[in-house]
Amino acid sequence: MSDMAFQDYYPDDYSHCYGCGRLNENGHQIKSFWDGDEGVCRIVPKIFYSGGMKDILYGGLIASLMDCHGAGTAAAAKARELNIEMEPGAMPRFVTASLKVDYLSPTPVGKEVELRARVEEIKKRKVTVSVTLSTDGSVHARGQLIMVQIKED
Amino acid sequence: MSDMAFQDYYPDDYSHCYGCGRLNENGHQIKSFWDGDEGVCRIVPKIFYSGGMKDILYGGLIASLMDCHGAGTAAAAKARELNIEMEPGAMPRFVTASLKVDYLSPTPVGKEVELRARVEEIKKRKVTVSVTLSTDGSVHARGQLIMVQIKED
Repeated sequence: MSDMAFQDYYPDDYSHCYGCGRLNENGHQIKSFWDGDEGVCRIVPKIFYSGGMKDILYGGLIASLMDCHGAGTAAAAKARELNIEMEPGAMPRFVTASLKVDYLSPTPVGKEVELRARVEEIKKRKVTVSVTLSTDGSVHARGQLIMVQIKED
Repeated sequence: MSDMAFQDYYPDDYSHCYGCGRLNENGHQIKSFWDGDEGVCRIVPKIFYSGGMKDILYGGLIASLMDCHGAGTAAAAKARELNIEMEPGAMPRFVTASLKVDYLSPTPVGKEVELRARVEEIKKRKVTVSVTLSTDGSVHARGQLIMVQIKED
């Protein structure tokens, strides 16, 4: 089971996200995994996800990847806290309350991008996550997300 | 000339953005216009830009649209301030320094989305912009951007 990503445990009705939904065939279908206490995701974005200039990665994609990977890491951290037995569909569902991205330097197109997310705080249904995005070990952007767990029926 | 969008005045080498580049045939190619002192952009996103659930718009797309529309409005405001005569290629180029999005309520898929941007401050090369995203007059998200003008050679 260890080769399954956070997103593989999302309920089916919550798996349509353009960024991370395994049932969205048009989307990025990113996959996030634990690396110790950090959530890690690696992806090589298609080259047409450029910013104004052809060789610079689209800032909107950076924000999008941070959002999805941060959401996945928040959900996985909450599942850990609740000691939920992991099986498909078992992952708690979260929505983004706020997202802040600081763009530090241009991110090159055509490179593998690494996202690393760290859970800063879990306060009941609210999880605060910080995320970095880097290529070749250089951090190009930092994000801060507040995620809120959806109340289940 | 009044039917030309902010993005139609971007230099060619700055028109490859997935969100707003007129030369990016894979992207959204959003168009922004003045409505008094507000920049306005309307778009009906393709339905596969969904969030976790099929009927909710992808939060990453919301951040992306705010980024591009905010950048366009910042550039157009700077051009106004500098009294630049508008012609293709004349628009000043900006990059995003930071982007903050507060998601207030779910945005439905399949609706026309309206973005409205207001320039809060122009301080030399730094322009602060606030943006709302709404459908049918209901605001679903608010954004705050800090844009920085690229120094030209």
